[in-house]
Amino acid sequence: MPVGDLFNPRSIALVGATDKSGWSLSTLANLRTHGFAGSVHLVNPRGGVVHGSPAHRSLTEIPEPVDLAYVMVPTGAVLGVLKEGAKLGIRSYVVLTAGFGESGEEGARLEAEVTAFAAEHGLTILGPNGNGYINAAAGVTPYGLPIPQPLLRGSVGVVLQSGALASSVLAFAQARNVGVSLLTSMGNESVVTVTDVIDYLVDDPATKVVALFLESIRNPAEFSRVARRALAAGKPIVALKIGRSRLASHTAQAHTGALVGDDDVIDAALRGLGVIRVRSLEDLIITAGLLASSGPLPGRRVGVVTPSGGASEIIADRAEDEGLELPAFAPGTVARLAEIVPSFGTVQNPLDVTGYVLIDRTLLGRALEVVTADPGIDLVLLLSEPPRVAPPDPAPAFALYSASAQRIAASPVPVVVVSNVLTDVTEFGRRVQQETGFPHVVGGIEHGLQAIGAAVRWSEARARPPVPPREVRAAPPPGASGVWAEHRAAALLASAGLPVVPSDLADDEEAAVAAAERFGYPVVLKVAAEGLGHKSDIGGVRLGLGSAEAVRQAYRGLAGVVPSLAGVLVQPQRSGGIELLVGIVRDPGWGLTLAVGLGGVWVEALRDTALRVLPVDAAEVRTALSELRGAALLNGARGAEPADLDAVAGVVARIAAFAETLGDGLESLEINPLLVTGSRVEALDALVTWR
Amino acid sequence: MPVGDLFNPRSIALVGATDKSGWSLSTLANLRTHGFAGSVHLVNPRGGVVHGSPAHRSLTEIPEPVDLAYVMVPTGAVLGVLKEGAKLGIRSYVVLTAGFGESGEEGARLEAEVTAFAAEHGLTILGPNGNGYINAAAGVTPYGLPIPQPLLRGSVGVVLQSGALASSVLAFAQARNVGVSLLTSMGNESVVTVTDVIDYLVDDPATKVVALFLESIRNPAEFSRVARRALAAGKPIVALKIGRSRLASHTAQAHTGALVGDDDVIDAALRGLGVIRVRSLEDLIITAGLLASSGPLPGRRVGVVTPSGGASEIIADRAEDEGLELPAFAPGTVARLAEIVPSFGTVQNPLDVTGYVLIDRTLLGRALEVVTADPGIDLVLLLSEPPRVAPPDPAPAFALYSASAQRIAASPVPVVVVSNVLTDVTEFGRRVQQETGFPHVVGGIEHGLQAIGAAVRWSEARARPPVPPREVRAAPPPGASGVWAEHRAAALLASAGLPVVPSDLADDEEAAVAAAERFGYPVVLKVAAEGLGHKSDIGGVRLGLGSAEAVRQAYRGLAGVVPSLAGVLVQPQRSGGIELLVGIVRDPGWGLTLAVGLGGVWVEALRDTALRVLPVDAAEVRTALSELRGAALLNGARGAEPADLDAVAGVVARIAAFAETLGDGLESLEINPLLVTGSRVEALDALVTWR
Repeated sequence: MPVGDLFNPRSIALVGATDKSGWSLSTLANLRTHGFAGSVHLVNPRGGVVHGSPAHRSLTEIPEPVDLAYVMVPTGAVLGVLKEGAKLGIRSYVVLTAGFGESGEEGARLEAEVTAFAAEHGLTILGPNGNGYINAAAGVTPYGLPIPQPLLRGSVGVVLQSGALASSVLAFAQARNVGVSLLTSMGNESVVTVTDVIDYLVDDPATKVVALFLESIRNPAEFSRVARRALAAGKPIVALKIGRSRLASHTAQAHTGALVGDDDVIDAALRGLGVIRVRSLEDLIITAGLLASSGPLPGRRVGVVTPSGGASEIIADRAEDEGLELPAFAPGTVARLAEIVPSFGTVQNPLDVTGYVLIDRTLLGRALEVVTADPGIDLVLLLSEPPRVAPPDPAPAFALYSASAQRIAASPVPVVVVSNVLTDVTEFGRRVQQETGFPHVVGGIEHGLQAIGAAVRWSEARARPPVPPREVRAAPPPGASGVWAEHRAAALLASAGLPVVPSDLADDEEAAVAAAERFGYPVVLKVAAEGLGHKSDIGGVRLGLGSAEAVRQAYRGLAGVVPSLAGVLVQPQRSGGIELLVGIVRDPGWGLTLAVGLGGVWVEALRDTALRVLPVDAAEVRTALSELRGAALLNGARGAEPADLDAVAGVVARIAAFAETLGDGLESLEINPLLVTGSRVEALDALVTWR
Repeated sequence: MPVGDLFNPRSIALVGATDKSGWSLSTLANLRTHGFAGSVHLVNPRGGVVHGSPAHRSLTEIPEPVDLAYVMVPTGAVLGVLKEGAKLGIRSYVVLTAGFGESGEEGARLEAEVTAFAAEHGLTILGPNGNGYINAAAGVTPYGLPIPQPLLRGSVGVVLQSGALASSVLAFAQARNVGVSLLTSMGNESVVTVTDVIDYLVDDPATKVVALFLESIRNPAEFSRVARRALAAGKPIVALKIGRSRLASHTAQAHTGALVGDDDVIDAALRGLGVIRVRSLEDLIITAGLLASSGPLPGRRVGVVTPSGGASEIIADRAEDEGLELPAFAPGTVARLAEIVPSFGTVQNPLDVTGYVLIDRTLLGRALEVVTADPGIDLVLLLSEPPRVAPPDPAPAFALYSASAQRIAASPVPVVVVSNVLTDVTEFGRRVQQETGFPHVVGGIEHGLQAIGAAVRWSEARARPPVPPREVRAAPPPGASGVWAEHRAAALLASAGLPVVPSDLADDEEAAVAAAERFGYPVVLKVAAEGLGHKSDIGGVRLGLGSAEAVRQAYRGLAGVVPSLAGVLVQPQRSGGIELLVGIVRDPGWGLTLAVGLGGVWVEALRDTALRVLPVDAAEVRTALSELRGAALLNGARGAEPADLDAVAGVVARIAAFAETLGDGLESLEINPLLVTGSRVEALDALVTWR
């Protein structure tokens, strides 16, 4: 739904304005003090004087066209206002009033009426149960809570699914000197949704970065669409998505279900879409603030320039956490730095130019100039910050920061300025930044390195966009229902040309022996009963059968395990190799999701899996494999044959692509183990669950 | 070394005072503005007027006794000042002058002279190359850099191995309204060390919490001693120890060496001592500030009271990260809250009393009162913070915060107040706190939950102090040198009554067969060559030998592997069970360190080990086992027999205790695997390395 008109009205009516309401007072004060150039009309059924101005008795009484109605009337009166407004041609609404879906059944019924009426008459409604929005870029602030002063205009668009957090977000953004383009408090999203606003921000020239606080992602498909648009447009999305602590399982039959919680899928989905997920409000704003000022960062090789050995080492620790590299300086850089840094200092990356900066105020700047010219680094982290308190004579400070600003502006690589600790940028500090052009300062080493790491990863994601979604013709096999145990599942995989260990379904002992003779000993026997999940748990698998007699005995043994033995599966026994698990489960929101990990008995004990929402290509699968804690096993740890990772990734990607063709009826498809021996990759067991 | 006199002088001489030095100017200004009640004498060889006051030409000229000399003379003149001072009976010094050990060989020589002279004459010297200290509690501030205003007095003692970080630490502490008792900038620690200062702080009545920034722990034994004293005294130590990113390996022979980096050992050591390790300056001060105000916390069951659903869920996520519990409220609590919380709210833990707080300012306080009375919680997290900006009429704010302060003070359980985001406590906020008694506010949910988690863990450590170090009579076995491969190592373990798989050393084929017959088939044969590490890597192990003929063949095969076969080891073959690794390695600083983890081929692939610095008891080993990612395997994942964890922990603790008796010559002792089958615990292979 387009929301451009909603956020850019030329005239606003406050419906339900009253001196008794703090919301009414705040909304009017916000419109008056933050630069709204259009007309504001107050509507109160009793008329009279409200907030010192005459009020109209209804929308109808207003003598000029109204673009936006900000509705604060009692819950039961909201629909009436909408009806009156619709008649008058008012298309855009903010409904602050609560008491709808969030408050129970009756409220939900009222909300459904509102939604239906809006759909019928093409109304754009933000809320209900939301405080409105702050369009700082355009100076339009129909917003029901006091806005902390000063409201800094900038290029971060903020979308919040929790109205109560808006004040903290604004206060923190102000403390970080991060300006906002638009902030919306979504409320119940009965008409306008988070994704509508993101869509708007992707097109909004005032917005460079989108910051989200999400309680839930209601429409993953739509979210994916707008996230892909944002990435293509080069606008990072930073998201604080809560609910990490709640795990849920989708399918009980397959191992994969127990391994994949809802939040794990969300995490994989966001990553796949290039959305930066953070875990704190601080990181949300700091990361958005960095990206708004830096844009994409060209790589992960960081040169670090500081006036403190202690800080340098904290930075080194945090850089490693974030996967950033601090390469050694080039010999030319070392030589030039040796002329600048005092003899008691050490020339290395991270660089500590020493406390001598207190004597020679140009030291840090000169060192910065040298490091930015190093051919082996992608960006420079400069530890610096504007002053907190105005000195008696501020002129030298202004001169110093002007000089720094010029050096930074002249750098051939991006310079990210980071402060030691996370304290507010003070009013004086902000003034210094404004007047000298000293760049944005990222708040503290701890959050700053997180932000730089996230910005680098986003920049890489932007350079290698995710596999685009594709139209897949669904071709579910005949009889696709229930659980397909190994023999049917294996046949299904084999029919798609996927590598499956050879097997024969034997109806009696003699057939089993004949199959074993054909494959050569040793062989494996497995029960082949419909609807059977974990065969090994019930003693339904016999390994290492080296003779016809052993096969016969095993056959009889299995007949005792399962009352209605439908036959046994005979396979050649494989030995050695590394067992992987490849599971594909359907997430109710995000669709088919791939889990790869160590297989066999280690699956649940170690829970070492990497997830991807489909589609994936082989390159993405390779990356997923490299994320496993047990990745060293694949690379040939302790004498094992190294796995051909390209071969493994290729097979896994083909399995995933095949799963996509199986249609909406597919609940899960699991191969455990997928045996990898060098470049031989072979499914030894499989399980398919249909909805 | 006692440092009480150093930090509490009644008269101070600034030696090398000059108008040309910022350090000189700052030190004098600090002494004058931060309440030093004693006399300050300026010493400059040229005499004259310095900083507007007459200067003495030497210490000797000062007409009254001097307790502390603050030395800023050139490097080459420092020793002369000490000699003059020693003659005059001056015992305490701060040496700001740099150019000593940190600047190369010549400086190191000078520093050695200073150290030797100090030892000879009983001088207490802080530095050299340090800015001095700030004894805020006593108003004694011989400190060479400007101190950010206001200097807040409080009960956190800060010890810094990086002088350049002091200003940031002070600024951040001020922003968090955290007061300092003493801050020391250690410099080169040539005489007074970090542990001397900690010792002082443990006894200092003004100090409740110790905050450390550490680049290195120079004397682990001494550090352990003072850390144990601090824990016994109930004074938490919070430490930011850098150098996490540098890994090192001690012993190449044993697997354990590759698994245990220097920093892993430090981490284990600090944890074992009850020292709280943090990773950022923010967490250092925030955690210390919380503990200074809260003292020990009684448990990990947290009741959460907030005015925001979004914040509640962020708190729930972070609480889970920190291992804190948010138990459901008792029925009585729910009933009482239902009368308070608006009907559109939900009564649950974490509690969101809803944005209705804006209408009813008592809502949060009333809900708090109910939750603090819940019988199932140990402490309450209240989301609140003092105002940032003074309203036109501040009286209502003061009244509101006074009422809150009273409710909090009346609570039967500790109430930890946490703000939404990490912004500065402003001057007005500080005033509100001071005048209303509103308690300490922890800075932001992200850092606040880290701090609460750390404080809870510290409180638990305090309640269950670490195993005390013990005097162990060293009894190294005869011939303890080089590498002892399995048969000698196993015999050593067996001699101590530790459970080892039975084995015979056979000199020829017939002896091997005889041993096999005695044990019963199948058996294992292993080469028994001196100095041999990873036998399986060189094909020196033959498994599953089921007959005399198989044993003979295996024997001949092994003879081909090792040129000088000293015999083979024959053991019964064990099957099933879970393989653990138990490694004990000697860290050069911390001494013997235990690593337990998953054994067999998984050791290096998964690097899943838990570390403890010795001594340990069985309870501590059980905790270590529970930390393994693969702990589920021990509990019987996927049909395996659950391990008897008490039996395992008991054996491992006995192995560790035995290692302690082997003397300083023991480099490492490794058992891999320690096979666990239910309650049977048996070493299948062992390797001992002597220094």
